[in-house]
Amino acid sequence: MGKVVAEITISLDGFAAGPNPTLEEPLGQGGDKLHEWAYPLKSFREPHGLPGGETGPDDDLLAESVRATGAVVMGRRMFSGGAGPWEDDANANGWWGDEPPFHKPVFVLTHHARKPLVLEGTTFTFVTDGLGSAIDDARAAAAEQDVLVAGGAETIDQGMNARLVDELQLHIAPVLLGSGTRLFDGVTPELPRFEVAQVLESPLATHIHYRVVK
Amino acid sequence: MGKVVAEITISLDGFAAGPNPTLEEPLGQGGDKLHEWAYPLKSFREPHGLPGGETGPDDDLLAESVRATGAVVMGRRMFSGGAGPWEDDANANGWWGDEPPFHKPVFVLTHHARKPLVLEGTTFTFVTDGLGSAIDDARAAAAEQDVLVAGGAETIDQGMNARLVDELQLHIAPVLLGSGTRLFDGVTPELPRFEVAQVLESPLATHIHYRVVK
Repeated sequence: MGKVVAEITISLDGFAAGPNPTLEEPLGQGGDKLHEWAYPLKSFREPHGLPGGETGPDDDLLAESVRATGAVVMGRRMFSGGAGPWEDDANANGWWGDEPPFHKPVFVLTHHARKPLVLEGTTFTFVTDGLGSAIDDARAAAAEQDVLVAGGAETIDQGMNARLVDELQLHIAPVLLGSGTRLFDGVTPELPRFEVAQVLESPLATHIHYRVVK
Repeated sequence: MGKVVAEITISLDGFAAGPNPTLEEPLGQGGDKLHEWAYPLKSFREPHGLPGGETGPDDDLLAESVRATGAVVMGRRMFSGGAGPWEDDANANGWWGDEPPFHKPVFVLTHHARKPLVLEGTTFTFVTDGLGSAIDDARAAAAEQDVLVAGGAETIDQGMNARLVDELQLHIAPVLLGSGTRLFDGVTPELPRFEVAQVLESPLATHIHYRVVK
């Protein structure tokens, strides 16, 4: 059975998104800066249907994550791209366009039941009975591969509190956001113990892979 | 002329100290966990007058910081070890005992003028006209060596806001504190730009050395 891996980028001051997320800026004000390390990479561009891209250690890391992942779990806001009344619209295609970059089953946490959304290469399944259930569904879909809990911060926090996360792949971008949504803000501090499994140095971001000891 | 290097350990959730600092727990509740990476090291034990200790990459890093530092700047609370009415007592020897581990000139930011405190190997000089002035004094004392801004978080934040810090040596301990004093909380996010200079992987902490671009 695969592992449950949470993966997220945070700023040096701990934010996974800036303040005031909108459809135009789903990661909040300044939140785009968090992912500057990823945008140029081949492994980022390829699933987005973009040609070329940089290779190297950062790309290897991202490629390995993509390769190991059999199914994805995400929160409702990550699916819908920021807050807004439209996000519960059963006809909305989410924020990811007609050809989402996942190319594997995605399980979306929501309070509003809706039919699966089948798009080119990616099916979004909506799970209304909690993160544990979404991870179970994702495990079944992933078979021997890993389940990626892709965000946002609240979903990952929830997973750590419920001891559902085996590993945390953290990307620390060398920027400050000053406000927004912080990773770990909802985590009971006594709960998870972390062990550093691997660190990748890069000018773009510091990639720290933690094992979460349960 | 040497550089101005801020050095501090933070938790994975960004705290440089836990809540409710006292004389017994100057780093606040749980704050001691932050520095578990350092306590066993030879370079930590030696200036504290303790024999033995571990060597290896973490120790090399700490030894190099000690070697490069010509003078130290710290905030009043770091000198006095937690909050309390006694901390402005002109007779108090601070928190560091009769043989402080610095063995170089230390400049303490305070609002209360007092004479220098000369202890075995370390002289504490009290500076009442601000961080810039304390750093100037430390520069003069350090000659060609670096000035270490040793903390706490508020003092380092103040230094980054005033563009007085050239480099930030961050130690990220794999623990959560949940509350306390956060590094970067007082920093204007647009101000400092960080470049990753060096990363040292270790099971105990992740050591990231940033250049602060002014």
